[in-house]
Amino acid sequence: MSDSMERKNLLDPFGTTTIDDYTRLCKEFGIKPFKSILKEVPNPSTTMRREIIFGHRDFPRIIEAMKTGQEFAVLSGIKPTGQFHLGTVLTAKEIVYFQKQGATTFYCIADIEAYEDNRISFERSEKNAISNVADILALGLDAKRAIIYRQSKEVRVKDLAIIFSRAVTLATARAIYGDRDLGLYISALIQAGDILLPQLEDFGGPKPTIIPVGIDQDPHLRLSRDLSKRFRHKYGFIPPSATYHKLMKSLSGSSKMSKRQSNTSLLTLNEAPKEIRKKISNAFTGGRTTINEQRELGGIPEKCPIYEMDLFHFIDNDKSVKKIYNDCRSGSLLCGEHKAQAIERILGFVQQHRQKRRKFIEKAREILQVRTSVK
Amino acid sequence: MSDSMERKNLLDPFGTTTIDDYTRLCKEFGIKPFKSILKEVPNPSTTMRREIIFGHRDFPRIIEAMKTGQEFAVLSGIKPTGQFHLGTVLTAKEIVYFQKQGATTFYCIADIEAYEDNRISFERSEKNAISNVADILALGLDAKRAIIYRQSKEVRVKDLAIIFSRAVTLATARAIYGDRDLGLYISALIQAGDILLPQLEDFGGPKPTIIPVGIDQDPHLRLSRDLSKRFRHKYGFIPPSATYHKLMKSLSGSSKMSKRQSNTSLLTLNEAPKEIRKKISNAFTGGRTTINEQRELGGIPEKCPIYEMDLFHFIDNDKSVKKIYNDCRSGSLLCGEHKAQAIERILGFVQQHRQKRRKFIEKAREILQVRTSVK
Repeated sequence: MSDSMERKNLLDPFGTTTIDDYTRLCKEFGIKPFKSILKEVPNPSTTMRREIIFGHRDFPRIIEAMKTGQEFAVLSGIKPTGQFHLGTVLTAKEIVYFQKQGATTFYCIADIEAYEDNRISFERSEKNAISNVADILALGLDAKRAIIYRQSKEVRVKDLAIIFSRAVTLATARAIYGDRDLGLYISALIQAGDILLPQLEDFGGPKPTIIPVGIDQDPHLRLSRDLSKRFRHKYGFIPPSATYHKLMKSLSGSSKMSKRQSNTSLLTLNEAPKEIRKKISNAFTGGRTTINEQRELGGIPEKCPIYEMDLFHFIDNDKSVKKIYNDCRSGSLLCGEHKAQAIERILGFVQQHRQKRRKFIEKAREILQVRTSVK
Repeated sequence: MSDSMERKNLLDPFGTTTIDDYTRLCKEFGIKPFKSILKEVPNPSTTMRREIIFGHRDFPRIIEAMKTGQEFAVLSGIKPTGQFHLGTVLTAKEIVYFQKQGATTFYCIADIEAYEDNRISFERSEKNAISNVADILALGLDAKRAIIYRQSKEVRVKDLAIIFSRAVTLATARAIYGDRDLGLYISALIQAGDILLPQLEDFGGPKPTIIPVGIDQDPHLRLSRDLSKRFRHKYGFIPPSATYHKLMKSLSGSSKMSKRQSNTSLLTLNEAPKEIRKKISNAFTGGRTTINEQRELGGIPEKCPIYEMDLFHFIDNDKSVKKIYNDCRSGSLLCGEHKAQAIERILGFVQQHRQKRRKFIEKAREILQVRTSVK
């Protein structure tokens, strides 16, 4: 937990956040529960149905657009600090979902944030970005109908950040983000530029925009929504909508799965099978201290990163997930057995994903306009 | 005087600064007196000889380059908030001087600063910039050997600002500039980008660079010099050198001549003759309360904006200026007579300048790549 998280009311997009109480969070920041509007969504995604998405801001505006066929946009992105891991896959899936629902799609490689927040050079970000873009294409993003860009190369995003900065007092910046280097404030302004980019005239002007993110990114949303109002007179911005998904547990069962944590706490899409076996075998679970105890009391799937992987990613069928949940709770499914099943599912997914992504590496280079060294 | 100026030790580039004691200032901020190196300068400018330039940082590095024929650069600029006034003319003359001494010349239209600090829209800055560029060309800048650019259009400057921001803590920013909106901090980082732009590979790499400015701009120099050291490993930056000129008195005799002040306090190069007559006639002087008193005690040219105009701008011959100084001190030259002479000199200069600048308006448009409405 980073320093600033110790202050009350501060969600930290730049730190490693653990969220135990999503309901409290909704109340505190004025986020609406997603559950109450789920039935209005024409064709809800798995993450919506399974309550992985637990909250939203102004989502009815998106439902309206989906229903009436009005143009709307989706934007989210990745910090190119390393390989795609299961946390970033969640966002990727949500973007793919909204693209399929007809959204004009923006995928942002947040290399300025990676530089400011994680001290990753732009050169290194470029390499990671190729891999990341290949991953999201393999996950189903249709490149032909998407705007995929790097922050560092998108002049309009940088210009919006500069334009917005005049309206942000130091007091506001400190209230939202705490005391930070100027780089992190600039990074936040750049994110506001990303979030409002789809509404510029170059992209057809103001439109409802959905930003699917992890709850730790809400500070950027609050800033962007505030700025959308302050600059409405100039750009006609509509306040961006957001959905918030729960943060994935790390394999150690504690905080958010994050590239900040040691390698043993997260799983990437490009892991060697041997590594996957090892990491899952060593992972924390919701099991009891002895087998007897577990047979008697049952496990606690709510605490278990292995169950969460199934729920979030590796089992498509809702009934199959429910069965695992029940078998764990009843004590009939022990952790060893569950891990063995999970390993096979994950290996199957990763192998298939790898084959797909191989075909997209060149395409990713092309999209990012990175020249290959052999020519 | 802006709020933050009330804090000790804070020179304010964004405010209206009055400087009474240049010697104290030099000591406080580690600025070296220019007087002691004047004799080393191969071909000193009028502003150097007349001690209008009173201080410097690392100027011997520029003298060395001038003497050995090593490549060096000069950069300064203007905030396009209005017409060229006599304060900005001073900087312009210094740039023209260094260009004539062989410097690679950069002239920056600080439209991002005008936006952040003065709330001038980029559209309005563009109009002002055309006028400003025509002025500096009329003042002798050779466009063929100069890089004239707008901050808002120079991606490299914006990128440097983003790159630098990571190294600037909030504590540093507040110590140099006080508590400001994020826009003003960004503006400061953009200026650092300007100051170090001439040393990028695109312009031939690291080189001694002289930044001639008014003393109120020193905070930007301190920040830029600090950043040049922090990013030396990456870009090989040489800390930029600076000369500092005194700030021109406003016509009311008090603070710096600035576009922030009311129109009656400053003189622009594009003023109607009638206005010039009126402003000079109404100006504060170093005269006494009665004619008899002045005949007896003499005037105080050090306090007089009219004398300062002659010294800074309108009399080329050193001996002629000296004579006016002595005649004022002795009481033989009264303020009315001096004002009448000054009005003629200023009108002559302005008329000549106007004829020259008319020829440069189209050129200015072309340099700034602004399309004319009639085509």
